[in-house]
Order: sequence, then structure tokens, then C-alpha cells
Amino acid sequence: MKKIHIIGLGLLGGSFALALKKKMPEIEFTGFDIDPRNQEDALTLGIIDRALEIPEKDTDVIILATPADTISELLKKTLDQIGKHTLVIDFGSTKEKLCQEVAQHPNRENYLAGHPIAGTEYSGPKAAREDLLDRKVFIICEMDRTNLHLKEMAYAIFDALNMKLRFMNPDEHDRHLAFVSHLSHISSFMLGKTVLDKMQDEKNIFDMAGSGFASTVRLAKSSPEMWAPIIQENKANVLEALDRYIASLQNFRDKIKADQFKEIKGDMREINRIRDILDLEK
Amino acid sequence: MKKIHIIGLGLLGGSFALALKKKMPEIEFTGFDIDPRNQEDALTLGIIDRALEIPEKDTDVIILATPADTISELLKKTLDQIGKHTLVIDFGSTKEKLCQEVAQHPNRENYLAGHPIAGTEYSGPKAAREDLLDRKVFIICEMDRTNLHLKEMAYAIFDALNMKLRFMNPDEHDRHLAFVSHLSHISSFMLGKTVLDKMQDEKNIFDMAGSGFASTVRLAKSSPEMWAPIIQENKANVLEALDRYIASLQNFRDKIKADQFKEIKGDMREINRIRDILDLEK
Repeated sequence: MKKIHIIGLGLLGGSFALALKKKMPEIEFTGFDIDPRNQEDALTLGIIDRALEIPEKDTDVIILATPADTISELLKKTLDQIGKHTLVIDFGSTKEKLCQEVAQHPNRENYLAGHPIAGTEYSGPKAAREDLLDRKVFIICEMDRTNLHLKEMAYAIFDALNMKLRFMNPDEHDRHLAFVSHLSHISSFMLGKTVLDKMQDEKNIFDMAGSGFASTVRLAKSSPEMWAPIIQENKANVLEALDRYIASLQNFRDKIKADQFKEIKGDMREINRIRDILDLEK
Repeated sequence: MKKIHIIGLGLLGGSFALALKKKMPEIEFTGFDIDPRNQEDALTLGIIDRALEIPEKDTDVIILATPADTISELLKKTLDQIGKHTLVIDFGSTKEKLCQEVAQHPNRENYLAGHPIAGTEYSGPKAAREDLLDRKVFIICEMDRTNLHLKEMAYAIFDALNMKLRFMNPDEHDRHLAFVSHLSHISSFMLGKTVLDKMQDEKNIFDMAGSGFASTVRLAKSSPEMWAPIIQENKANVLEALDRYIASLQNFRDKIKADQFKEIKGDMREINRIRDILDLEK
């Protein structure tokens, strides 16, 4: 492996390059971002060595790390242009539509459908961190549809980055992510909104560090440019997760209204099981 | 100040004693917990020096750190029994009903209505931490109703603990807390429930550290014994906050359904303002 090209030099693309440069210093990184400021920052920060709109023919791996709603077109265009020995990996948060759209592409075997489960509430190349991907999960979908030799390059990269590989069907991926990731972001955004709206009548509602609010609302700082497209691309699953969430809240609300606090306590005890499951992750 | 008595030797009562012992080693700490195991643990951990059901007559300060629904009765009983020079402080998460119920008590001036804005998702004396209260907000309600000399003792304590004092009306306190604290807990619990319910059909939905889920659901690990009573005591305000939250979610859901992703992006940008407000806190 000698050359990697990254399209989309934000938090994920940037963190990927910073980490891999440490482990594989012999690789040259080229890259492109549609926002000239991001591209300039990526050069300054050493995320890429050269800015380049079209990847060169001898590029080994092309990474697509742009917002979810732009990947489909970009992927098709990229697969149209590459040679036989180039691997294309995308970092998009949704997988089902993407995999469907390139299912019949003559270069389908040059594509690996991926999703690194990592992020922060910040975005752009300046938010990139060398350790962002370390020991995080990297989900691969339809792995048997990627060429065996090209896949070896992907394994070398993700092993070097110390990532934990997981394999899923694209539809399973999108369903799971709607519940554990996309719903969390929406619940945070709406919590932020509820409190901001209330602040219009009430001053000094904040200054309450320690109230649990800060951690619950953290994701409401996330980038709308990244998240609105994810919701759009995963609309059906997100609606299902959101409807279930609203129904649970409504049910809990009705129990409060009816003074069923014994039942509420029982429900909360049940939900405390989340401790065991979250602690398992460590 | 020579003797402090703590009723309720859990996370807050325990953390209070551990921190104050460092700063004022001359004070003797007595205490009581209705759960014999907690009381035993508090002795072992050095939270209290002596276990004692009824505080001794020469006690300077009595701290009430029991669940929100037990404080009212305990406060009235304690005010009935104490002498002129004893100050009673409660650490309850709701203030309006409490202040109303003792408004006419002959020893009202011996009481200081307080609320330390601090906690973790863990509970009990073993979860107590010497630094839990450090640089956190301590809210005092109806401060002008507490005896001036007794109040000096409270100031000495909270200064020693390095806490930031804030003053509010009880009704204002309960309204604010419903939005920034109680609602966050409910939104986390219901997020946990939604994902746990979904897990019944889907395996390995977890192992997704980095997905934002862990921080958003953290408060769902909280103690039902503490939180069900808080919701109960602050029922009207919690219902208002919850209704507004559900309405926001429903509105967001309808926009997704109607493919209004441009509007969704705009809404999210508005909510991003929460960054500035949260960052101010630091």
C-alpha cells in the first residue's frame, strides 16, 4: 500500500488519516473536501500530504467520508472511474440503500461497505483526533461481495488502527443504528430544544452542572450537516425507533398523571438492567 | 461547630461527610440510615464516627439526605425535637411542598432549604466520593426565613466544601429542576427502555461504544428509590416538561415523515446554540 485518497476531510476522514499515518508512515495521503477551508485546514494539520480533486490511478484505497446523503452518487462515480486494483471504502452511517444502489455495478467487488462507530459532537478537520478510532467497532456489510485480495488491504488498515471488526447485513445495520445511535441524537436534540424554549420565559435556568443535563444533551451539539442526512437516509427505521420512544414516554407520562408511582419504580428497576449491558462493553 | 448528624447515609450524605471531614477534622459525625447495611457501610468507610438513631441535644447541624418523599415527615419531626441552636438542612431535590409544609412551624427559622446540584448514576454510601460536591452549585430557597446566626454555620460549611451558592424561590427551583434535571432522567430511562424492548427481537444490538448511546442513556442507571419520589414530589412541573418534550419529538417526527429535511436541518442549527450555553458553565 502506497497511496490513500480521502474524500471528505472532516472528523472521521481526518481522524482516520492522523491515526494511520502514525502506523504506516510510508503511505502518501491525498484528499479532497468540497469546502476549501476544510481542505486547507487538512493540509495545515498534516491530515493529507497533497490536495487533489481526482484520485490518481495508482491509488490503493479511496475513502468516502462525506455526509450520508452524498455518498451514493459519489460511490457510483468513483466505482465508474477506478482501476482494477483500487479499493473503495465508505464511512457512511447508513448502509442499506448504498448497498442496493451498487449491487449491480460492474466494479462492485472493489467496494467495501463500512461504518466506524466513533464520533464526537464536534466536526471538521480541526476536530480530528489521532485516537478517535482506537479500539472502536468497525462494521462491515456484505463482506463476501468484496474482492478477496482487496479485502486484505482493508484488514491491514483496520488492524493497524486497532479497530474491532463486526459483520452485519445492511438492513440489520440500519435497524440497529436507528435505535442505538440515531434515536439518541434525536432525543438529545429535542431535550435541548425543550430547555431552550423554556429559557425564553425563565432566566438562569442553567448553571446546573451536575444535574445530569450536560451529558444527556451533549449530542445536541452535533453537526446538522451530518445528522439531517443520516435521518433522511434511514427514514423508515428512525421513524420506527422514534414512534416507540414517544409511545414509551407517553405511557410513562400517563402513569405519573395517574399517580402510579409504585409501577413507575418497578419500570425504572427493569430499565436499570441497562447497567449490565453497558458495563459488558468495557 | 462540634457535631453534625446525617440522616440518610447514601451518595449525597456520604459525599458531604467525606469532604467536610477533610476540611474540618475537629467535627464529630453521627448518623443514621434506615437500611442497616448502609449504616454499617458508612461506619466502615469512615463516613460517620458513630451510628445514632436520635441526634444528640448538642448537635450543631442535622442533615436530611433521604429520598424526596420521606423528607417532609422527617423534617417536621426533626424540627419538633431540636433545641434552639441546632440548624437543620435538607438536601432534597424538590423544595416547594417542603417549604409550604413547614411555613408555620414554630422552629421554621432553624431550617435551611437546600439542594446540592450534584450526583452520579450510582447510589449508596459506597458510591460516595470526597470530591462529588466540589465546585458544584448549592441552591438555597427562602434564605431570609432562616435564623441569621444559624445561617452563618451553613455558610462556613458550604465555603469549606467549595460550593457555589445560588438563591431561588422554591417554586422557581422546582420548575427549573423539572426541565434541566428531572426531564433528563426520564428521557434517559425511556431511551433505555426503547432499546431494551427492541433487544428482545434483535440480538447484539449493543457493542456500539462510540455511538453516543452510552452518554445519553447514562442516567437510566440511576436509583429508582431516589428518582420515583422526586417525580412524585414534583409531579406538576415534571408533567409540564414532559408534555413539552413529547410535543417537540412529535413535531420532529412529523417533519421526518413529511420529508422536511431542510427544516430539520434548520431546527438542529437553532438547537446547536446549546453549545454556547453549556460551555459558559465551565
